[in-house]
Amino acid sequence: MATEIERKFLVQGDGWRQGSLGVPYRQGYLLADGNRTIRVRVAGDRGYLTIKGPMLGISRSEYEYPIALADAEEMLASLCQGFLVEKQRYRVEHAGHLWEVDEFQGQNQGLIVAEIELSDPEEVFALPDWVGAEVSHDRRYGNAYLSFTPYCTWDSSPN
Amino acid sequence: MATEIERKFLVQGDGWRQGSLGVPYRQGYLLADGNRTIRVRVAGDRGYLTIKGPMLGISRSEYEYPIALADAEEMLASLCQGFLVEKQRYRVEHAGHLWEVDEFQGQNQGLIVAEIELSDPEEVFALPDWVGAEVSHDRRYGNAYLSFTPYCTWDSSPN
Repeated sequence: MATEIERKFLVQGDGWRQGSLGVPYRQGYLLADGNRTIRVRVAGDRGYLTIKGPMLGISRSEYEYPIALADAEEMLASLCQGFLVEKQRYRVEHAGHLWEVDEFQGQNQGLIVAEIELSDPEEVFALPDWVGAEVSHDRRYGNAYLSFTPYCTWDSSPN
Repeated sequence: MATEIERKFLVQGDGWRQGSLGVPYRQGYLLADGNRTIRVRVAGDRGYLTIKGPMLGISRSEYEYPIALADAEEMLASLCQGFLVEKQRYRVEHAGHLWEVDEFQGQNQGLIVAEIELSDPEEVFALPDWVGAEVSHDRRYGNAYLSFTPYCTWDSSPN
């Protein structure tokens, strides 16, 4: 088991783009019941199956397995529920940490979120100036939530 | 994707034992909602994660992945729901076909079921004399069902 420890922020401005093209991600959920999340993901030309346990603060257990691209595509098309979550993922270095910036498309177009993965919940890191409000504890910004209640259905845009 | 095509029978007598020790199986379910089943299995010293689609007659889609034994043990202990399904699985050759005989233990003790995997739903095969009534279409004998409604809770033993 890996432990995923992650903080999540809204993004302001374009300072993070740095000319990178990013990688297209498409993902859906076999299960998302608040305690367990089972995700099927296509990242570029690779397939993944990921099981996550319940959130404990900003940490959760995570089991990720590479799977055949064809399997992932089939499961996305036939076995997942909710909307497909589509986004472009950019990897941005800042002050010795790697940030992942997700620019959502499709039903979640208009939403841009930055995540930083930590090795400890108390780990100190520098905030880039393109990072805005923290949303680590706002469940609406979870990708599983966005699959069932996409950004375009939210009452008012919160960023 | 593989397609699982399987017929299932109750077992009568001990003619199938043939001295084999079998392999201990322990399995649990992350999800079993009638349309999708996500199973975590420990078979001997190997771990597996298996996703199955809805039953179409005696066929269903199946995606099976070997995973680390430690991952499987952790998911069985922390993320699965229902009771653990424990059984001893025996592989028995009969007339050119492989039968899998599951002798259940724990909450399902007393139940013995034989399955034959086919390459076509219409495939012809010989019935060994230790095979009794067919239960392919009786959902109670599905292992996911047995995880939530184990044999010991059934009103009367049907075999």
